[in-house]
Amino acid sequence: MKKIMLTGDRPTGKLHVGHYVGSLKRRVELQNKNDFDEMYVMIADAQALTDNADDPEKVRQNIIEVALDYLACGLEPEKCTMFIQSQIPELCELSFYYMNLVTVSRLQRNPTVKAEIQMRNFEASIPVGFFTYPISQAADITAFKATIVPVGEDQLPMLEQTKEIVRKFNSVYGETLVEPDILLPDNQACLRLPGTDGKAKMSKSLGNCIYLSEEPEEIQKKVFSMFTDPEHIRVEDPGKLEGNTVFTYLDAFCRQEYFAEFLPDYENLDELKEHYKRGGLGDMKVKRFLNKVLQAELEPIRNRRKEYQKDIPYVYEILKKGSEKAEEAAARTLHDVKEAMKINYFDDKELVAMQAERFAQ
Amino acid sequence: MKKIMLTGDRPTGKLHVGHYVGSLKRRVELQNKNDFDEMYVMIADAQALTDNADDPEKVRQNIIEVALDYLACGLEPEKCTMFIQSQIPELCELSFYYMNLVTVSRLQRNPTVKAEIQMRNFEASIPVGFFTYPISQAADITAFKATIVPVGEDQLPMLEQTKEIVRKFNSVYGETLVEPDILLPDNQACLRLPGTDGKAKMSKSLGNCIYLSEEPEEIQKKVFSMFTDPEHIRVEDPGKLEGNTVFTYLDAFCRQEYFAEFLPDYENLDELKEHYKRGGLGDMKVKRFLNKVLQAELEPIRNRRKEYQKDIPYVYEILKKGSEKAEEAAARTLHDVKEAMKINYFDDKELVAMQAERFAQ
Repeated sequence: MKKIMLTGDRPTGKLHVGHYVGSLKRRVELQNKNDFDEMYVMIADAQALTDNADDPEKVRQNIIEVALDYLACGLEPEKCTMFIQSQIPELCELSFYYMNLVTVSRLQRNPTVKAEIQMRNFEASIPVGFFTYPISQAADITAFKATIVPVGEDQLPMLEQTKEIVRKFNSVYGETLVEPDILLPDNQACLRLPGTDGKAKMSKSLGNCIYLSEEPEEIQKKVFSMFTDPEHIRVEDPGKLEGNTVFTYLDAFCRQEYFAEFLPDYENLDELKEHYKRGGLGDMKVKRFLNKVLQAELEPIRNRRKEYQKDIPYVYEILKKGSEKAEEAAARTLHDVKEAMKINYFDDKELVAMQAERFAQ
Repeated sequence: MKKIMLTGDRPTGKLHVGHYVGSLKRRVELQNKNDFDEMYVMIADAQALTDNADDPEKVRQNIIEVALDYLACGLEPEKCTMFIQSQIPELCELSFYYMNLVTVSRLQRNPTVKAEIQMRNFEASIPVGFFTYPISQAADITAFKATIVPVGEDQLPMLEQTKEIVRKFNSVYGETLVEPDILLPDNQACLRLPGTDGKAKMSKSLGNCIYLSEEPEEIQKKVFSMFTDPEHIRVEDPGKLEGNTVFTYLDAFCRQEYFAEFLPDYENLDELKEHYKRGGLGDMKVKRFLNKVLQAELEPIRNRRKEYQKDIPYVYEILKKGSEKAEEAAARTLHDVKEAMKINYFDDKELVAMQAERFAQ
């Protein structure tokens, strides 16, 4: 069986360092290892519209931002098919038929949906499209016969829903769809990077994200104002690492070689942490180090982004070609699905012959 | 504005006299009056699958039955586009986007959905596709920019849902979709013809339907065993008309000229009813008359059906051509919808230019 990966992002804003360590970085590594037969990365505009139906312009504007972020991080169109969800009509058709295989109460029990509904204060006024998006997600994954879906732990219930749909479809209509596996991040700190203010959720309105396209001064400003240990007041005080955003970011971004380069007094991150815990290490020193680390990590990304920004029509062309390629794959799956459901009436010569015979009797 | 009609039937069985007086007869009349610019009649297989996902074969087998019934009643492919719902992928796409404009609680309040859920004993295990079918129905209606939908009174809440979606879509994305009007049956008896046993619901399992394809002996047998007034025991007893199936059927089917032909002792149906009410008119006499009426009504339909049954490939060809024509219309609407939502990125030259300019600054 082919190894096929599908993943994606909602185009509701520029991507930030949380997206990077949580998934983008890994995608690029997987791409460069040539470990997959096919890789698909989807800009999920249709999904973003499920709770932004009133503001399609926001989604529309951010597609190019996300595409630029992808290219900036090192995704290459030759190795990795980048496409726009709404340009693949087959996904809607698959969703439509999968909806018959899932009950309303099953959707209501989905913990991810529950949590997201709460987060968005939807309660009784959840848009149907938002409520049913685990089904739409199953369509996205199965359309490409994805075997691996690299997402965070919070997405496990979504993937479970996809697996259930696959099993149900295959048992009712015969073996057709492929059950995907989840690929969880290997670094705990990367699972959900907090905002620079220490809050769990990064958001544009809170101003607590460092974007991949951020300029150097802005990165420094955000790092210098980061949330640390509020009880670590004087340098000599012992400091706490738990909930200390600066150290969480170091866990996510720091590489061994950065010590030699930027902070040769310490061997590695463990030594730095020990010093902080026992006292005598000031927040500013750690922040200056983190700033250098982040600058080193983000500079090549930002530079690559600027190159692509010079040729926007080319970026749209990449998305268009990617969408065409993705549609071909999805169309093959939809063909198999309709054949399995036997609703491909006009291609089904047996059906016509059988019915003609039935009425001849 | 063009006058466009859309209507259809679920292919879960052969059509019966209830379908005929409730809608088919009128469709043929409307067709023959040439009153509409476009007429679409949809075989709603995708909708039938929402609560028959486990038995696609039943739906598949009945498509041809419904098509034969249409042609038998006098629908003509040149005047009236007959098509199969699942062959129009655009309908799924429209549903998908309309789902963002309707809340879950709105669907839960839909009285038609409530009633149907109860009728099918679904309760907590309603398939999502079934739950959301008012939205899918809005897609069917709006895809063809239908101005008139001839359905029963019980479908009023469904049409109201469609109107709400149209208004919401047009207010969010700009004037695009057309609000449909309902066309109710003009004959009260035709609204919901009871089964031959007097039960409100006709169903194959109850054996209480007279099918359009029924043979003469079978029609007679069913008429002769029809439910009348259980207290009308002797001929001289006064009889009741309410709930008396034979008279309900006469209300639906009897034409003035049938009295001269089959029952010249009476001027018209009112006279017959009066006699029955005051006593002295036996059930069998009325049943024999109804039998003659139904035989006269159904004979030409049955004969036309038999002609078409001889050439099943031609009937499939009609459906295929109809589906192609219907898809063209639906594709035009979907194009307008995507343009209004501005998710037609690759056709939108302004978008590329605007983004290029934005990044050049």
